[in-house]
Amino acid sequence: MAYRHHPLDPLAPEEIAKVADVVRSTAPNENLLFRVITLAEPPKRDMIAYLDLEHAGYNEPAHPGRVAKVHVYLTGQFHEILVDVTAGKVIVDEILEGRHSHVDSVYMKQVEAACIGDDRVQAQVRALKLPEGAKVIVEPWTYATDGMNDMSERITMCWFYMRLADHADANYYAYPIDIVAEVSEELKVTKIHRLPSSVGETVNNDPKEYDHSKVHSSSEYHPDLQTDRRQTTRPLQVIQPEGPSFEIQGNSISWEKWTMRVGFNYREGMTLHDVRYDGRSLFYRLSLSEMFVPYADPRSPYPRKGAFDLGNDGAGVNANNLKLGCDCLGHIKYFDAWHVTSSGEPLKMPNVVCCHEVDDGILWKHTNFRTGNAVVTRSRLLVLQTIITVSNYEYVFIFYFGQDASIHYEVRATGILSTAPIDLGDKVPYGTVVAPGVLAPYHQHLFCLRIDPALDGHQNSLAVEESVPMPFPHESNPFGVGYVSEFKVVTNEAGLDLNHQTNRVFKIINENKINPTTGTPVGFKLLPCYSQMLLAHPSSYHSKRSEFGAHAVWVTRYSDSEIFAAGAHTMQSLGEEGIASWIKRRQQSHKGQDNLEKTSVRNEDIVVWHTFGSTHNPRIEDWPVMPCEKMVVGLKPVNFFDRNPGLDVGISTQERNKSVLVGEKDPELVGKEAKAKL
Amino acid sequence: MAYRHHPLDPLAPEEIAKVADVVRSTAPNENLLFRVITLAEPPKRDMIAYLDLEHAGYNEPAHPGRVAKVHVYLTGQFHEILVDVTAGKVIVDEILEGRHSHVDSVYMKQVEAACIGDDRVQAQVRALKLPEGAKVIVEPWTYATDGMNDMSERITMCWFYMRLADHADANYYAYPIDIVAEVSEELKVTKIHRLPSSVGETVNNDPKEYDHSKVHSSSEYHPDLQTDRRQTTRPLQVIQPEGPSFEIQGNSISWEKWTMRVGFNYREGMTLHDVRYDGRSLFYRLSLSEMFVPYADPRSPYPRKGAFDLGNDGAGVNANNLKLGCDCLGHIKYFDAWHVTSSGEPLKMPNVVCCHEVDDGILWKHTNFRTGNAVVTRSRLLVLQTIITVSNYEYVFIFYFGQDASIHYEVRATGILSTAPIDLGDKVPYGTVVAPGVLAPYHQHLFCLRIDPALDGHQNSLAVEESVPMPFPHESNPFGVGYVSEFKVVTNEAGLDLNHQTNRVFKIINENKINPTTGTPVGFKLLPCYSQMLLAHPSSYHSKRSEFGAHAVWVTRYSDSEIFAAGAHTMQSLGEEGIASWIKRRQQSHKGQDNLEKTSVRNEDIVVWHTFGSTHNPRIEDWPVMPCEKMVVGLKPVNFFDRNPGLDVGISTQERNKSVLVGEKDPELVGKEAKAKL
Repeated sequence: MAYRHHPLDPLAPEEIAKVADVVRSTAPNENLLFRVITLAEPPKRDMIAYLDLEHAGYNEPAHPGRVAKVHVYLTGQFHEILVDVTAGKVIVDEILEGRHSHVDSVYMKQVEAACIGDDRVQAQVRALKLPEGAKVIVEPWTYATDGMNDMSERITMCWFYMRLADHADANYYAYPIDIVAEVSEELKVTKIHRLPSSVGETVNNDPKEYDHSKVHSSSEYHPDLQTDRRQTTRPLQVIQPEGPSFEIQGNSISWEKWTMRVGFNYREGMTLHDVRYDGRSLFYRLSLSEMFVPYADPRSPYPRKGAFDLGNDGAGVNANNLKLGCDCLGHIKYFDAWHVTSSGEPLKMPNVVCCHEVDDGILWKHTNFRTGNAVVTRSRLLVLQTIITVSNYEYVFIFYFGQDASIHYEVRATGILSTAPIDLGDKVPYGTVVAPGVLAPYHQHLFCLRIDPALDGHQNSLAVEESVPMPFPHESNPFGVGYVSEFKVVTNEAGLDLNHQTNRVFKIINENKINPTTGTPVGFKLLPCYSQMLLAHPSSYHSKRSEFGAHAVWVTRYSDSEIFAAGAHTMQSLGEEGIASWIKRRQQSHKGQDNLEKTSVRNEDIVVWHTFGSTHNPRIEDWPVMPCEKMVVGLKPVNFFDRNPGLDVGISTQERNKSVLVGEKDPELVGKEAKAKL
Repeated sequence: MAYRHHPLDPLAPEEIAKVADVVRSTAPNENLLFRVITLAEPPKRDMIAYLDLEHAGYNEPAHPGRVAKVHVYLTGQFHEILVDVTAGKVIVDEILEGRHSHVDSVYMKQVEAACIGDDRVQAQVRALKLPEGAKVIVEPWTYATDGMNDMSERITMCWFYMRLADHADANYYAYPIDIVAEVSEELKVTKIHRLPSSVGETVNNDPKEYDHSKVHSSSEYHPDLQTDRRQTTRPLQVIQPEGPSFEIQGNSISWEKWTMRVGFNYREGMTLHDVRYDGRSLFYRLSLSEMFVPYADPRSPYPRKGAFDLGNDGAGVNANNLKLGCDCLGHIKYFDAWHVTSSGEPLKMPNVVCCHEVDDGILWKHTNFRTGNAVVTRSRLLVLQTIITVSNYEYVFIFYFGQDASIHYEVRATGILSTAPIDLGDKVPYGTVVAPGVLAPYHQHLFCLRIDPALDGHQNSLAVEESVPMPFPHESNPFGVGYVSEFKVVTNEAGLDLNHQTNRVFKIINENKINPTTGTPVGFKLLPCYSQMLLAHPSSYHSKRSEFGAHAVWVTRYSDSEIFAAGAHTMQSLGEEGIASWIKRRQQSHKGQDNLEKTSVRNEDIVVWHTFGSTHNPRIEDWPVMPCEKMVVGLKPVNFFDRNPGLDVGISTQERNKSVLVGEKDPELVGKEAKAKL
């Protein structure tokens, strides 16, 4: 049987429709609310066989089949169903007892309406005596477990703001209001609190009249409301007269010796598969596994602010529809994605990933000082970018591929800070006052990049190398200048830390493949993003729920089910379901003689996870909308190839690059300026 | 009297010529060898007065005068002479006893000739039985003090290589030969050694026949010799239909609210002065102060490989003549520099700095999820780039200025690894075999960026902030999620270390200016480049000579004479002349009651120095020419402004950016591809 879709292609709309039909037909009497219909990626074992044949040139290797994972509420009960797409049959139907689906925007709108429509809420708002014309905005947030409520029911926190300018895009985060409400699964307002607004203040239920001196005019970002816009930036355009250098067929990209497949799902958003360079296998899968944004304000109910933006919200469902010339410059290829409506119809999400090229300055250069001859190449990068909006914040996620076989993964945080009210003149040690009465609480952004390596095969290892001074005084080091590298292969699953002071380098290697020149195993090294790990106390719910935040580098044995570092179900989770618990359970269940074997990661199919991020103690310069804060992680070959893989890149010439010389008194410019001044 | 030149302008050619005349006239009977005629920047005290008046709008503030610093050998004696350029008079004439000028390329060529012409050298080379047609190349290196010779005389180490291909740009570093010679000031070969070529081997004087199986063909980079060049990279051009966004008058640049002056000298190369944003003073001077490249091979004479690429070689004199469309893409403004010939003539160095703009993706974005309206701005950067060649290596030094008032300083290391011979099949723990018989020894690149701040004035402080968990269990932190920032102002001169685990942030602040909204001192934070510090033993010459390599961040009281972190004269220096010694001496000389006051750096005119770099244990992918290794340092406002300084950047539109949509089956492309295949 010929399959139309590659096994790693996301589900096509007709597949989504078919799966919805299958589910409907199995539950004819149920009230159905679809949340997810997504590809269940084939087991890796099957995929390896498929990819091996595919790359060996077979036209139609035995297809591992198309299976869909469905999240659906059947009359209120949350099910995870696996459907054989081709056969049109349910394979597994499991009720996820005590679990909650990711954020449901339809439900959230109902929560908002219920909250704002509640009589007690209305009374509290009236008591605040807000400024004339203020429109109250309710911002629903998922509930970060704090031990104060039963988590088996969905609870939504409703934070209050107001919009003052008469414009739909006015920045309401500039006017946080000091009340908060809890809304139950059944859309009932169960609690209303006043928020603390000065240090040490505890929650009480007496609303305080809104302090009108907090009204200010410096917090707008929308062009309609922020008029004094600089006119000095002249246009800069990228032209590619012969088109881009990449070729794309479906979800497969080939560019400058790289080949890979782009995937996309509701949760991780963009994923990359079967990444190869010059025909050699490098990575089976690259993806953002999870992210956690815990807030530092210790005062109740702020500890409930702690967002799993993948597990709770979904990087896929929140992906922006990228606009040509706005989000992307140059020759742009867009990838669309397909999600599902609550009634099971395929839902197109256009332009969720853009693919284009950028120039990145010098790739390599050498001038022979004897002849004066310079040889220069410029670095071209392939960019795969996706941008998500999660309420106030946006995140830009970018993979860059280099001609030198390097990969960089960049996260940019932008958007608007989450805010809280503060009394004028007050300060707290866990937040920055960014406008009158506006506190931007400290918080962390912790990302976990999942790196599933396949360096020349699937049996890989993780090594830790440090650079250490040779003993001195010692006859082998008479001048005290010697240093050596010390190399250790990690034998068992573990969480490990960075140390720039010892130049600790994490290398993914294949011990079965020795580089014939260097005599060392072929490998790729991680260029980490040095970051502070999770600050919450190890016994806190924050810590237990985001175990990946405890260490910068983790290595585990591959498992088809271990994709999400904080666990498969993060919404109101109780913790101990993440990467540390997987490791601990395996170690405990294999105590005794086979302990080491079952948790061994040496020369096995392994996964490496890198936790990084920022301790974001806001600056006023992050307000009212934050210039991108960049975090970058790299993967670079280390004794993998036989030389610089970018050695053969074309020499940089003016003939091709057509730069323009700017004279100090460029007549054309002077003319234009003179004209502009008239 | 009206001065033609701004006090910070580098010396103009007519000034250089005049100064040379003045020096000649004072030494009519001497044999003159000019090494340097450069601007002696005015004392900061005078410059502050000048700049204050200049920025207050005075047309011709009292000029602090033009003074030239001259390095000249008068009949073999090394002098430092200060000349009042306008008056044409010598102010100071000092003999620099026991000091040596930076590398003299004329002399180095004489060294090469003397070495290769030496009979014993010839005999040693003959005994090696090199391959037919091999051309022996002698590479002279400065001598890193190792205690084995008297350093009052200049000594040059001559390393041997051979060129096999019949091409002037063939890569001779691919064939290191295992002899080395020392050449004296008087051009005599004083010692010849055979180099060790396996672990533990010590130097002896029996040359070993060249192992012909080391001859290989995989180490060429020049396009004439490396023919299999990829043809897949299609052109990418930058067009700026209205020209660049910057305006340049002489050495003054204004761009997107930034103003600054570009300086250039033989030693530091590019320097930046009087850097302001939106009229507010930020930095008095930014410059690379020094760099040190010590090698890890402990075997004599390799410990003599330790290059001060600024102090010994000069980032200015080794600056490349940048080529339009090769080194720089877009609309490029070049700055020239003027050096001096050995006979005192002005020597033009064209295109040593390029100035242009690049697009850097998203600057900020927010989508209001309620309205679906996205507002996006793109980030434009101003780039100031210079590239230097120091024998085998090149360094790219780039300042990036952002519209959000951020500055980034990037160093890219590229070029060719310094190599040494190794026996086939051998390995050493302090080097990588990159080609048959070619060892690329481990080494470090340590850079020191000198940051002379002037944040809203010249009385600044350095603060250290860490993010620390609140006590738990504790009533103020009931859920264990609270964390606060702890802020300490550094009171006395010191060397300090990085700590990503505590999110240690170094902030330069002005304690006299409190941000009215945040209630905290205005400041800029350092985004450090996390790096291993110097590995050489503290008692080694390497350590004593490069004191800045001991700590990542230093803070000192400003002194007009403290520009170079390893001392003013690094060539064959004996050490203890650098930043640690300055601090120590001041502390010792002020022991007692006024100790703290004299070394106080709180609310004083201070300088902050950041040491960073790479422990470069070569990869084979760095061979035969190394793809750029990037190191980036940032400076970002932190509660300096009243909001995001890039808030007013124009909204990104397709109308201005003119991107091109790539269809999956773009007919034009398909046509071109079909054509290409015919």
